[in-house]
Amino acid sequence: MAFNNAFPLTKKTPENPQTIIEVNGIKIGGEDLAIIAGPCAVESEEQLYTIGAFLANKGIKIMRGGAYKPRTSPYSFQGMMEDGLKLLRGVSQKYDMAIITEVLDLSLLDTVYPYTDILQIGARNMKNYHFLKELGKTDKPIMLKRGMDATLEEWLLAAEYILMGGNQQVILCERGIRTFDHTTRNTMDIAAIPLVKQLSHLPVIADPSQATGNRDIVGPLSLAAVAAGADGLMIEVHNNPEKALSDGPQSLYFEQFSDLLEKLKLLGRVNGKQIPETILKTQFI
Amino acid sequence: MAFNNAFPLTKKTPENPQTIIEVNGIKIGGEDLAIIAGPCAVESEEQLYTIGAFLANKGIKIMRGGAYKPRTSPYSFQGMMEDGLKLLRGVSQKYDMAIITEVLDLSLLDTVYPYTDILQIGARNMKNYHFLKELGKTDKPIMLKRGMDATLEEWLLAAEYILMGGNQQVILCERGIRTFDHTTRNTMDIAAIPLVKQLSHLPVIADPSQATGNRDIVGPLSLAAVAAGADGLMIEVHNNPEKALSDGPQSLYFEQFSDLLEKLKLLGRVNGKQIPETILKTQFI
Amino acid sequence: MAFNNAFPLTKKTPENPQTIIEVNGIKIGGEDLAIIAGPCAVESEEQLYTIGAFLANKGIKIMRGGAYKPRTSPYSFQGMMEDGLKLLRGVSQKYDMAIITEVLDLSLLDTVYPYTDILQIGARNMKNYHFLKELGKTDKPIMLKRGMDATLEEWLLAAEYILMGGNQQVILCERGIRTFDHTTRNTMDIAAIPLVKQLSHLPVIADPSQATGNRDIVGPLSLAAVAAGADGLMIEVHNNPEKALSDGPQSLYFEQFSDLLEKLKLLGRVNGKQIPETILKTQFI
Amino acid sequence: MAFNNAFPLTKKTPENPQTIIEVNGIKIGGEDLAIIAGPCAVESEEQLYTIGAFLANKGIKIMRGGAYKPRTSPYSFQGMMEDGLKLLRGVSQKYDMAIITEVLDLSLLDTVYPYTDILQIGARNMKNYHFLKELGKTDKPIMLKRGMDATLEEWLLAAEYILMGGNQQVILCERGIRTFDHTTRNTMDIAAIPLVKQLSHLPVIADPSQATGNRDIVGPLSLAAVAAGADGLMIEVHNNPEKALSDGPQSLYFEQFSDLLEKLKLLGRVNGKQIPETILKTQFI
Repeated sequence: MAFNNAFPLTKKTPENPQTIIEVNGIKIGGEDLAIIAGPCAVESEEQLYTIGAFLANKGIKIMRGGAYKPRTSPYSFQGMMEDGLKLLRGVSQKYDMAIITEVLDLSLLDTVYPYTDILQIGARNMKNYHFLKELGKTDKPIMLKRGMDATLEEWLLAAEYILMGGNQQVILCERGIRTFDHTTRNTMDIAAIPLVKQLSHLPVIADPSQATGNRDIVGPLSLAAVAAGADGLMIEVHNNPEKALSDGPQSLYFEQFSDLLEKLKLLGRVNGKQIPETILKTQFI
Repeated sequence: MAFNNAFPLTKKTPENPQTIIEVNGIKIGGEDLAIIAGPCAVESEEQLYTIGAFLANKGIKIMRGGAYKPRTSPYSFQGMMEDGLKLLRGVSQKYDMAIITEVLDLSLLDTVYPYTDILQIGARNMKNYHFLKELGKTDKPIMLKRGMDATLEEWLLAAEYILMGGNQQVILCERGIRTFDHTTRNTMDIAAIPLVKQLSHLPVIADPSQATGNRDIVGPLSLAAVAAGADGLMIEVHNNPEKALSDGPQSLYFEQFSDLLEKLKLLGRVNGKQIPETILKTQFI
Repeated sequence: MAFNNAFPLTKKTPENPQTIIEVNGIKIGGEDLAIIAGPCAVESEEQLYTIGAFLANKGIKIMRGGAYKPRTSPYSFQGMMEDGLKLLRGVSQKYDMAIITEVLDLSLLDTVYPYTDILQIGARNMKNYHFLKELGKTDKPIMLKRGMDATLEEWLLAAEYILMGGNQQVILCERGIRTFDHTTRNTMDIAAIPLVKQLSHLPVIADPSQATGNRDIVGPLSLAAVAAGADGLMIEVHNNPEKALSDGPQSLYFEQFSDLLEKLKLLGRVNGKQIPETILKTQFI
Repeated sequence: MAFNNAFPLTKKTPENPQTIIEVNGIKIGGEDLAIIAGPCAVESEEQLYTIGAFLANKGIKIMRGGAYKPRTSPYSFQGMMEDGLKLLRGVSQKYDMAIITEVLDLSLLDTVYPYTDILQIGARNMKNYHFLKELGKTDKPIMLKRGMDATLEEWLLAAEYILMGGNQQVILCERGIRTFDHTTRNTMDIAAIPLVKQLSHLPVIADPSQATGNRDIVGPLSLAAVAAGADGLMIEVHNNPEKALSDGPQSLYFEQFSDLLEKLKLLGRVNGKQIPETILKTQFI
């Protein structure tokens, strides 16, 4: 690519071929296939602990859950906010799972920071350059989702804004782009995964839940992302998707998630990763 | 449209058919065709005063200019920041022009607020819902640019976030969407203009400079936007486009801008607007 | 544009600045604003003659109507085929209007040829290069619609295929491209109109009916296209849009079409064209 | 999906859950993972026989090669036409490989028919409904490529046109759609693969060469497509990609293709398919 000199800090070099970010024992970008799972939004204590118990039992070490939700309509559920953050921390402590949750705005950074282990930058903020610069000054790992209208180059340049600030622990997350075809919620740009691996030293994971909005194909797309070389997956799982306050149709049932983990075990080392030991030792139910 | 119940505050109703926002004597959404002009970015005192003098002489009453610039690359010119804001205020006072400039992040609101008459929300922030809510608590007119990946409904819902906060003075700005064809920088969605006029009481203006990235067609697209019913135009003009630090190729030369004003006079009342008296009385040079 | 050497026959040159194609007294690309109107599809004798009488009375000199319809579903109305062609010729003779209708496939050229004055190549065939080459050997004017996924360069190269065959009478027609926003059926690329005028000697008209799929904004988009420099318009009009067998929602009512013509008279010579005398002398009803 | 009643002949039903099309011993849609390979275009006897020998040695049973090429520019290589067809038949006979090649236009069907075993309908012809209807009357398997601007529903409806004509042997081929991001030539819509498998009984294969235009990621995308459930792959391979007359940058070197086959062997039965015995028994070189 002609554009790879545009992001000197982000590009792969002989000296810096691959960044590995260790979170709760999982080497993201390294030998592990990182599996992050949890609900779209934190909705209640019961919901979060039910899902947390299930995931911990499956060996999952990093849990997702939104406390502040960016919603298209102001009349949709906006998240439990600080109460949600507290629930996340509680589940984290009980089940030994690291937490990833979104920082919706710079003004919320101080509030969110103590409750999370990975700071998530949402797709809608990927071109919010002032925000990126400021987050570059933090010292926790950052997951940078791709904007739904962002080219690959724009995405890598957004990472460059963060790295310039000093924080080198950036995980890229492909979550689908917006195209003319609305059969799926977004169009997962599967080619972006091997391209990022060739161009940049940063780890890249896939979010097939946001990318499709359709739980029935989250499984196949998870397998596809791993086969294409992804360093991990972020997957929405819910104990009762029909009653989810946000994005229910894209949340996996527990059985679907269990089934997916079994298929990932089969897929094995196709891209040079292994399913973490904590997951491998769980039984198929 | 089935979706127009989704934005009760923004939709056109018999009781609220059209919001008119008066800025420096210009009735935006009312009988005037609002012409906002100025450079993409504030670059220097000489640049801004030269352009300001030209525009004032042409009868322009609202001047644009970016002090904080959202740039794809961290290595591009990021704006003069607070120094730029001070220059804008100086020009404003000398030439009696209102100022519009972008608020890049909520953390910059207090800095920008005193220097501007219209708060601009950039395309990259249109889905930054926390930001929209907070700006809804301010008391100055807000220009909400359409996100380059935003559907019409998403754009109107973004306006709804602002109106919910209490600020009813929102001006919508169509600035092009992102499509497969990169012949122009963006694709101006001309249909959005009459659709907004039918669905919402908010005024809508067009930004053909951002929409095209090509000064040679800014003129024809300005005429088209007015013919389609736009309440106004925002146009980039520069005294030396070849040396502009940002978006030179889309900035009009002074002669092109003068020529466009003459054509707008001819186009006249085709959409029920008139060119403001301040412009009409200027001579063609 | 860097690409304009790619289409030597199509590009504007000092020797060939503007092709003018005369059809039934209308100079397309010349001093006239060409107004082509008629139903999406020929449906019955009564329908076609009712519309034909109305249009002739308004001074329209070129009538459109599809006899073979390209429909997304095989279970939708496919057109009256040769019976439809005969009706078109009948109306043409009775009301002195030239006919434009689509040639759906090369195998249908011999059937369609004698019944039409302009051969229309549909958007779905714009990249059908074998077809374009063969149509370049005919001697009637050809209207080449832009493919809904075609870049400006691809469109001009498609014209080049026709010109290479010998037929120089090509009219380009912008009819909207496919984007992520489905608020309108397609997104009319208004910028393409002045760009074509700068790059090529071929006339370009706009089809706001196909571009929007929504009769309520066909009027504003027609005015916009003319203001942007279009050489003409192709507009769908129906005597009973609610009962239309194809694309009723985008067909104008007679009153809407009359109203549009009055507005076009007002818009006047904004782009250096005049409304043909036949239309100017009709009364507003 | 609400739209699956729109294509009664194409949809998956309990009575017709999966069509299997056998070509040269390969059960497409059945237990085999179909691997189709060959050059983009037939260029010369030497080129085609060199590639043919290599592929046959690898156990490939279906070879691709374009004799009539749809090219954006009329000044690009248009294919060897009938001479190319004869070379394809020669290679087919020498190496016992079935042939797939494109029928560019209905007028060329009689010419192409005797030389090919699978009739390919190109992306640019997917909405050429008259053509689809006529090809539905033939008795050879048809590969229907997805149009670069076609929604999933439009693609399945295009298949419906063919099935209506009587020919039930349709293979769908996902080859990428056109989006705003031109980092890759097209954007492979990986989600379309499991969706087609859920909605339709027709087999679906992926063409990662056309989808990406970049040989360096054809391998990862091939693996991804298989992991997502594809019934096969169509891959461009060339003995000398740098000198290819068409689409060299997306053609695999022989070593890359060999390497990909080894990885596919490892990927094994992840989607319930097996690599055909002819390939499995070849050695890694």
